[in-house]
Amino acid sequence: MPTLTGVTESDFMLALETLPLHAGAAGLRDDVATLAGLTVTTDTIVEGVHFLAGDPAGDVAWKLVAVNLSDLAAKGATPEGVLLNYPLGSNEWDIAFLTGLAEALDAFDCPILGGDTVSLPAGAPRVLTLTAFGRDGIAVPRSGARAGDAVWVTGTIGDAGAGLRIARGADGPAELLAAYRRPVPRLAEGHALAAHIHAMMDVSDGLLLDASRMAEASGLAVTIDLALVPLSPAYRAFVGDDRAARIAAATAGDDYQLLFAAPDGWTPPVAATRIGTFAAGHGLTLTDDGETIPIPANLGYQH
Amino acid sequence: MPTLTGVTESDFMLALETLPLHAGAAGLRDDVATLAGLTVTTDTIVEGVHFLAGDPAGDVAWKLVAVNLSDLAAKGATPEGVLLNYPLGSNEWDIAFLTGLAEALDAFDCPILGGDTVSLPAGAPRVLTLTAFGRDGIAVPRSGARAGDAVWVTGTIGDAGAGLRIARGADGPAELLAAYRRPVPRLAEGHALAAHIHAMMDVSDGLLLDASRMAEASGLAVTIDLALVPLSPAYRAFVGDDRAARIAAATAGDDYQLLFAAPDGWTPPVAATRIGTFAAGHGLTLTDDGETIPIPANLGYQH
Repeated sequence: MPTLTGVTESDFMLALETLPLHAGAAGLRDDVATLAGLTVTTDTIVEGVHFLAGDPAGDVAWKLVAVNLSDLAAKGATPEGVLLNYPLGSNEWDIAFLTGLAEALDAFDCPILGGDTVSLPAGAPRVLTLTAFGRDGIAVPRSGARAGDAVWVTGTIGDAGAGLRIARGADGPAELLAAYRRPVPRLAEGHALAAHIHAMMDVSDGLLLDASRMAEASGLAVTIDLALVPLSPAYRAFVGDDRAARIAAATAGDDYQLLFAAPDGWTPPVAATRIGTFAAGHGLTLTDDGETIPIPANLGYQH
Repeated sequence: MPTLTGVTESDFMLALETLPLHAGAAGLRDDVATLAGLTVTTDTIVEGVHFLAGDPAGDVAWKLVAVNLSDLAAKGATPEGVLLNYPLGSNEWDIAFLTGLAEALDAFDCPILGGDTVSLPAGAPRVLTLTAFGRDGIAVPRSGARAGDAVWVTGTIGDAGAGLRIARGADGPAELLAAYRRPVPRLAEGHALAAHIHAMMDVSDGLLLDASRMAEASGLAVTIDLALVPLSPAYRAFVGDDRAARIAAATAGDDYQLLFAAPDGWTPPVAATRIGTFAAGHGLTLTDDGETIPIPANLGYQH
């Protein structure tokens, strides 16, 4: 998920950057801050914006944890603890939320540090915030890619986007729905990669959008080959494998895979796919099996 | 403001306490956590619950900072940095918010570490979260009061409660409105006190309610004498000085003064007033110039 850096175009961000910034804020240009040797990240999710009103409460809890830990994963950090800011609602929803929260914290070995509970006015959409702290993180920025680096991505892309269609009522594989509702932050992969690569970030808003952001932050151009974008068998069966299906996958959000830049010729020690190249220049070039094709109007999900 | 400990009665809290807790969480029984030598606190404020829709955006920003730093003050901690979770709205409100944020951070010498911005569905009430980190804090708990300790409070009580009436349309002194809209966390007082007293917390929900919480956390009874509760000249002029006015002051929220327990006979090095005594037993006794009087039905503001 984007932190304050995600909307640098806005007047708000331009004004915010004029305030006194902590040395660990990295100029608000990364998804995490560093403080007292810890990696710190925070993400807010909103009912009707980041999750559906009908999403099960336990899945909302899982996702809230996962999206934050995904930012830690991109620094190779190990979860140390979380703060929760929670709007109390119906007892039933609250308890289901806590059940999912317990499952996520257990899965990622992360304890609760504290937080705050509030009441919302009747009918207000839920707004939930989690702040996550990680230890042993490495300051691998999104801006560190070098000309000639290969672009890599872990796992498969587009599953969560297809899962959102299923959550909205389409009939499709449970595996894709789970990718949307219970994403898994790539903590082990991030830990294995962080010390060896030039730039890394999580893919939260769409592969093409996030790759463009990494290129822009690094002052480089990037070429992504659609034909190389890794698709799951479930995605191929549900959506397809043609150009339109691949563009849909590469512009859907919520993947929470890791996108990274590594020297040409280096082989990552984790399951990952090479999908493109950074070069001098700027902007995104999209190819399909080597042939340059038009850039889609929307590269991803801008919240 | 209450943290997760503020609603320990609820099923939510009982369930939350069964999750894995970080060693720095202090069992979720304090307003702060400790992590890597830092004091950590987080508070969420909600439009229509913690502030009025008509409150100026700059004042909302100030208050969001102040309520968090007030929790740091209660540990004698020095502000180190903040994370902001912000719902983007109208450009005008956002820029006014940032102006107030800049004023507060400048006033309390506290830089920005990072955060997250989100969009809310149209018409949704604003929900804002700030997380504050402090250094050099001391683990002075709310539960450390001892039988025989004196109860002290800094500053004056009830000004913000009277200011809320003015914010809602009553005609009254600007000084009281400012106490509601621009509370000042007692950082210097907390720093001067923390190493010398037995228990401390900020008064956020009402003097009687917070004193009762300190007594309960400490396993003690507390007696507060209404006649000793410090009122400002502006409060006396606007609300009065009789028993009803004093009960109103002692049960209004948003004071952000420091309430502390100190050995009988010790004189604090800051402007503070002795208002009562802790003793063996449990529960709150209210006196007025020594005469025991009935306890009000509402001891404070429970959000």
